Amino acid sequence: MPDLVFPLDSTKKFTEQQLLGHNRWHHAIPPAVTVKPGDSFRVHCREWFDGAIENNDSAEDILNAPLTTVHTLSGPIAVEGAKPGDLLIVDILDVGPIPQEDSGPLAGQGWGYTGIFPTDNGGGFLTEQFPDAYKAVWDFAGQTATSRHVPGVSFTGIVHPGLMGTAPSKDLLGTWNTREAALIATDPDRVPPLALPPEPQDAILGSLTGDEFAAAAAEAARTAPPRENGGNQDIKNMTKGTRIFYPVFIDGGNLSVGDLHFSQGDGEITFCGAIEMGGFIDLRVDILRGGMDTYGVSENAIFMPGNTDPQYSQWLAFSGTSVTLDGEQRYLDSHLSYQRACLHAIDYLTKFGYAPEQAYLLLGAAPIEGRLSGVVDIPNACATVYLPTAIFDFDVTPGHGGPVQIDPGMGAPHASR
Amino acid sequence: MPDLVFPLDSTKKFTEQQLLGHNRWHHAIPPAVTVKPGDSFRVHCREWFDGAIENNDSAEDILNAPLTTVHTLSGPIAVEGAKPGDLLIVDILDVGPIPQEDSGPLAGQGWGYTGIFPTDNGGGFLTEQFPDAYKAVWDFAGQTATSRHVPGVSFTGIVHPGLMGTAPSKDLLGTWNTREAALIATDPDRVPPLALPPEPQDAILGSLTGDEFAAAAAEAARTAPPRENGGNQDIKNMTKGTRIFYPVFIDGGNLSVGDLHFSQGDGEITFCGAIEMGGFIDLRVDILRGGMDTYGVSENAIFMPGNTDPQYSQWLAFSGTSVTLDGEQRYLDSHLSYQRACLHAIDYLTKFGYAPEQAYLLLGAAPIEGRLSGVVDIPNACATVYLPTAIFDFDVTPGHGGPVQIDPGMGAPHASR
Amino acid sequence: MPDLVFPLDSTKKFTEQQLLGHNRWHHAIPPAVTVKPGDSFRVHCREWFDGAIENNDSAEDILNAPLTTVHTLSGPIAVEGAKPGDLLIVDILDVGPIPQEDSGPLAGQGWGYTGIFPTDNGGGFLTEQFPDAYKAVWDFAGQTATSRHVPGVSFTGIVHPGLMGTAPSKDLLGTWNTREAALIATDPDRVPPLALPPEPQDAILGSLTGDEFAAAAAEAARTAPPRENGGNQDIKNMTKGTRIFYPVFIDGGNLSVGDLHFSQGDGEITFCGAIEMGGFIDLRVDILRGGMDTYGVSENAIFMPGNTDPQYSQWLAFSGTSVTLDGEQRYLDSHLSYQRACLHAIDYLTKFGYAPEQAYLLLGAAPIEGRLSGVVDIPNACATVYLPTAIFDFDVTPGHGGPVQIDPGMGAPHASR
Amino acid sequence: MPDLVFPLDSTKKFTEQQLLGHNRWHHAIPPAVTVKPGDSFRVHCREWFDGAIENNDSAEDILNAPLTTVHTLSGPIAVEGAKPGDLLIVDILDVGPIPQEDSGPLAGQGWGYTGIFPTDNGGGFLTEQFPDAYKAVWDFAGQTATSRHVPGVSFTGIVHPGLMGTAPSKDLLGTWNTREAALIATDPDRVPPLALPPEPQDAILGSLTGDEFAAAAAEAARTAPPRENGGNQDIKNMTKGTRIFYPVFIDGGNLSVGDLHFSQGDGEITFCGAIEMGGFIDLRVDILRGGMDTYGVSENAIFMPGNTDPQYSQWLAFSGTSVTLDGEQRYLDSHLSYQRACLHAIDYLTKFGYAPEQAYLLLGAAPIEGRLSGVVDIPNACATVYLPTAIFDFDVTPGHGGPVQIDPGMGAPHASR
Repeated sequence: MPDLVFPLDSTKKFTEQQLLGHNRWHHAIPPAVTVKPGDSFRVHCREWFDGAIENNDSAEDILNAPLTTVHTLSGPIAVEGAKPGDLLIVDILDVGPIPQEDSGPLAGQGWGYTGIFPTDNGGGFLTEQFPDAYKAVWDFAGQTATSRHVPGVSFTGIVHPGLMGTAPSKDLLGTWNTREAALIATDPDRVPPLALPPEPQDAILGSLTGDEFAAAAAEAARTAPPRENGGNQDIKNMTKGTRIFYPVFIDGGNLSVGDLHFSQGDGEITFCGAIEMGGFIDLRVDILRGGMDTYGVSENAIFMPGNTDPQYSQWLAFSGTSVTLDGEQRYLDSHLSYQRACLHAIDYLTKFGYAPEQAYLLLGAAPIEGRLSGVVDIPNACATVYLPTAIFDFDVTPGHGGPVQIDPGMGAPHASR
Repeated sequence: MPDLVFPLDSTKKFTEQQLLGHNRWHHAIPPAVTVKPGDSFRVHCREWFDGAIENNDSAEDILNAPLTTVHTLSGPIAVEGAKPGDLLIVDILDVGPIPQEDSGPLAGQGWGYTGIFPTDNGGGFLTEQFPDAYKAVWDFAGQTATSRHVPGVSFTGIVHPGLMGTAPSKDLLGTWNTREAALIATDPDRVPPLALPPEPQDAILGSLTGDEFAAAAAEAARTAPPRENGGNQDIKNMTKGTRIFYPVFIDGGNLSVGDLHFSQGDGEITFCGAIEMGGFIDLRVDILRGGMDTYGVSENAIFMPGNTDPQYSQWLAFSGTSVTLDGEQRYLDSHLSYQRACLHAIDYLTKFGYAPEQAYLLLGAAPIEGRLSGVVDIPNACATVYLPTAIFDFDVTPGHGGPVQIDPGMGAPHASR
Repeated sequence: MPDLVFPLDSTKKFTEQQLLGHNRWHHAIPPAVTVKPGDSFRVHCREWFDGAIENNDSAEDILNAPLTTVHTLSGPIAVEGAKPGDLLIVDILDVGPIPQEDSGPLAGQGWGYTGIFPTDNGGGFLTEQFPDAYKAVWDFAGQTATSRHVPGVSFTGIVHPGLMGTAPSKDLLGTWNTREAALIATDPDRVPPLALPPEPQDAILGSLTGDEFAAAAAEAARTAPPRENGGNQDIKNMTKGTRIFYPVFIDGGNLSVGDLHFSQGDGEITFCGAIEMGGFIDLRVDILRGGMDTYGVSENAIFMPGNTDPQYSQWLAFSGTSVTLDGEQRYLDSHLSYQRACLHAIDYLTKFGYAPEQAYLLLGAAPIEGRLSGVVDIPNACATVYLPTAIFDFDVTPGHGGPVQIDPGMGAPHASR
Repeated sequence: MPDLVFPLDSTKKFTEQQLLGHNRWHHAIPPAVTVKPGDSFRVHCREWFDGAIENNDSAEDILNAPLTTVHTLSGPIAVEGAKPGDLLIVDILDVGPIPQEDSGPLAGQGWGYTGIFPTDNGGGFLTEQFPDAYKAVWDFAGQTATSRHVPGVSFTGIVHPGLMGTAPSKDLLGTWNTREAALIATDPDRVPPLALPPEPQDAILGSLTGDEFAAAAAEAARTAPPRENGGNQDIKNMTKGTRIFYPVFIDGGNLSVGDLHFSQGDGEITFCGAIEMGGFIDLRVDILRGGMDTYGVSENAIFMPGNTDPQYSQWLAFSGTSVTLDGEQRYLDSHLSYQRACLHAIDYLTKFGYAPEQAYLLLGAAPIEGRLSGVVDIPNACATVYLPTAIFDFDVTPGHGGPVQIDPGMGAPHASR
């Protein structure tokens, strides 16, 4: 085990730890720890809601999830000598649930959860069809996940950090705030909102205090979106063995990481669509001096996935185009096309006895592939979603006998106002 | 070899063949041939422009490509007993370039092409960055493609039909025309257009003649977009061994197929991004009686890909978010995110000596993966594009030594007005 | 299609063709055709028994198969400039059944066969347990094989040439004859024999005639075994896209090829365990000057398999050790270990309702993996055999419900004296 | 983390632990722990020599390795209710090096080793060519292994237990001893020996003491070979996610496990060819009542490998036949064929600058595939060995430029008498 440079005690809140992380992006947050190029080290990560979501059969916690508190990130980790213009090479040596803890109240202690967030508290990819709150709790057995709320499936986790990135520079932060404010201004009262402005309420900024804290909290960026620094990319393929190249925007790079996922489908479609958990991540860092210019990587991460992702060789695929459910034709809208493909998959699975929300939760959590199949054939983009058939305990392929009927069990916990 | 039910003679134009196909969708086009459930049969397919694009070092043919003439489809093929509400099971037994013809003037005779279409004649995914016409000719050696216009790469073809589908019903056709006309009306003079209205000019409608032809041509749908009937889905994974389930909208189903691709990346991003060719496809059909309702497949194809796609185990990936090149923040726009990811890949490849258009042509033609990685993290969708590193003759990964410099050769032919 | 340099007419016997191949190895057999380095070309191949095995429900043809007539090889193909000491680079561009012929009396015309050869006419890997003759006929649909004699399975072919190699030099031929004669001499009357001595009866030696024919026929090597020149290696992974490096022993190299297989498991265990067929192979050749010494490849082929083999992700595996069925302990005998692993797999499959010979035929023909798992743990070698579960129409994995019972159908045709 | 039922303290010898394991097979060894069907639990495993092999640059420890002390096994673990005739279902939930210990003197603390054993102390697959002792120490970084003794390669570990199995019955033990004694009697003074008879010296038999110990030690079977109970199978594919079905021969089954490998090639060819280490394994057990008869599994394990083994898509393969290096023809000897294939691979790698022993060590430790390609083509079996090219830092494929020359570095430590 590499040196543990950012420990978390599972019995304490995120704000009561030996080292304090952060839940906003800001250049002034001091490094919690400093490492050297070539170092390997372990980082503990808290699940994104710091324990607010429980291992039970109620979705009230999802309904009222405290969105201003996320994401509880570990870091910043400064890398000695990293300078703006460099690329920070980050190798994911290992990543997993909370080590040596197989049961307990904290996601990552042998279990995790997937949530469908209600329209008025986060929403999700298909929030028009699923406006209420639902939850599925997943149990881990080794690398396999199963859920009492979504029967009939089990799958190998594709474990990855949902969120990792370097700190923005002051200028870059300004750019973010300006452009996101402009978007919000086009429809400021929208539910769910178009974007999330800086929010001092519940801000955690590492060791910043007093006026410095107040100044930074007023302008620090929310962690929800992925941006030029990587961030909340939710790329399911950033698994063990992956090498990532992050742009460096400030001295030291100031890498932060969190939002670990035991598994996730492409898109993380239920908003909190992954199987959320806390855990650990082992990283090794190095510097590619001047790499941003040398390789033309001025923003966003580039990466090389590892070679131990779970393998499946039979898939059932659904396609969608950019026509709304109401029949309105949109122009080359791949986002809509993927929504339609996912809705087709949900319709299909309900024929086997799943409730629609069970199917939706499953698509968020299982290692489905979502592809931009056709993006130029005006006016319809074509997106496709691929389900590995081997994750089902029954034959999920179409046949002359018609769909078998599963027992949907207790169903997914539901809550609404 | 299964019975050849739809032959094409490579020495004759598409309109001079023994059986005449079509290049519009219309319910009244009579079947060119009728098969029985359980039948296997071979169909010849003409490349989508019927030979207008040549194996040379000029892009004038792309610049002036006759878009009203596409796609030259083989069919309709009626399946005895198929009724609206059924699912038509279509197995792709085999698919490839023109059999027994390894050289000649027709794409599919040992070669194919990829085109970047100019903004005023089709455009493409990145038409703002690439407003002119470019072309790459690819040579086939067995299942491998190489190009004198894009040096330094060779890859195994992922052969598939770009376009296959059943005939729309009269009602469905009406729906298409209504909704697409409404979209066009929002910006009727846009270049490139938002959608393509019915166009009698150059229409080919099988054996229809006289008034029937005229009536159908006036309302028949263009073949560019994928729609409820499948159509121009450009799904690169519909390879040999794939089983597809198409909704049946009229008696007999009336399946048509064309637009074969020797290879393609997810998205077919250069508009004519695949390696276009004519060739053959061997199909087997069956009927899943009442399957549309039984399985909830009221529209769009569902499918199970084959298991012999080319395998790669190392990938170099690029990510993008939904911020425009001008810095404008868009709301969860996966289409834009994928554009940005592709532009990042192009920027990267130019550091190795490729011209931007060479990189763009390569991304269209090579078996790249395009994934909707994050679709819920407001306001930024995250899309990713994965390049298999093994297709490059050189080390394309980032390293301390910096990028090697390739010889870009003669470059990609270019044409503009 | 590359130029067809070695054509075969399916309506004529192997000996009545325009170009005459051969069925023995000898340096004096003149090239049937000469190609240049860099050339691509097509070669037709006849199934190894030249049509003696029929598409029917009798195994009499297997019982009396004319073993002195095999293998009907296409070639020799001389490569201009190839010299002893070079490596001949051979790319398999494509390989498949007889093109454009989907039915007919010749294996490769839409069908192929697997045979269990009787102990007194060839034998096989498990001839002690299976002393009689059995046959399974397999039908091809695209790349998929099924058999009326082995119900409940279908699989994607892993098409490859069972036999390809360069001509031996005079010295090398002498070495073969000497060492094999010495082995035969240790038990000259063994049934089946230890090895096959030169056999003028039924020898075919290309264009050799008269005294030259007689002299060569008296010493030409049989084609059954793989040797330093490659030969009958029966490596299932030499599929489309494979590059092979053969040692060159005489001027021109004199490459020959035949014994095409639609599919085969590792070991080709039933002797004629592959799905045997005639067909075509497209090759491209080049010369690696002096490569034998440069790369230390003085004998036997080295190769790089293609990347489009059928993919399976779930396997059921059986292990065996080097103890005979009678309980005798042998010393590190991987051959025996693999026999025991295969027998275990057969025992297992019979619990599902298969006759033992059906299971044996299946293991020969399906794309099973056979691995040398442990070769040093005295006194027991450990070999393992892996069956892809997806080739079965039913659930073939062990479970609490016990094995489902299939309908074994008509069974495999059987013949004995 | 599942409950730790068999702990090991890295600071203490195997014989000084809280629970004492064993290094011989005997039915009378009492269970160290008892679990229930359905239980998940963790077991610590000591590296097979209990720390005798050190992380240094000398091979003296290999030369004099105390072979009578192996293998230090954890267990027996009794499963409540398991009866002879049942199958014990064992799921490998997880397996890895010593958790939370990344450095230290014990293999598994961040490092492991591969040894070539001298002919007079164990020998190995190629002991005729490599009669002396050599060692390679491998360092772990996450799931990747590299070695200062074998430069130019790095690869993802394919972690697995080399040895796991149930206890033999009294009868079965008698069978082993009888048949192995008979083999030894054919050449009792052979070096290395044909098999290993019971050896009271250094025997460890769990909690047995006094007369019971003496009686058992006199007849307990050595752990070197795999046998009917599984045992030292060294199957590299028994990785995380694998389900194994072991025959039960005595009440409780009495499962034992040890000899963990960070990686291994097929065959474990250098005798101690894997990367040896201590560590942990998480198992879940269940009982398939009467499964031995129901599924025809009277001996040897059957298993279903997991789906997260490292993936490689390009391989360089070598073939061998059953002719000795001296030119003697053997009859269908797959063991010899695999030796010849491995020797060909070694010859090839030396052309790039590796010392032969470095190449040999690499083949033992890296995830190479060894296949029984042809086992029926008298008199030559054909075996093949496949090297994943991506594990090399340089281009290891043959080309016109000839092999690049690596720096072999300090070489592999060597020792001889």
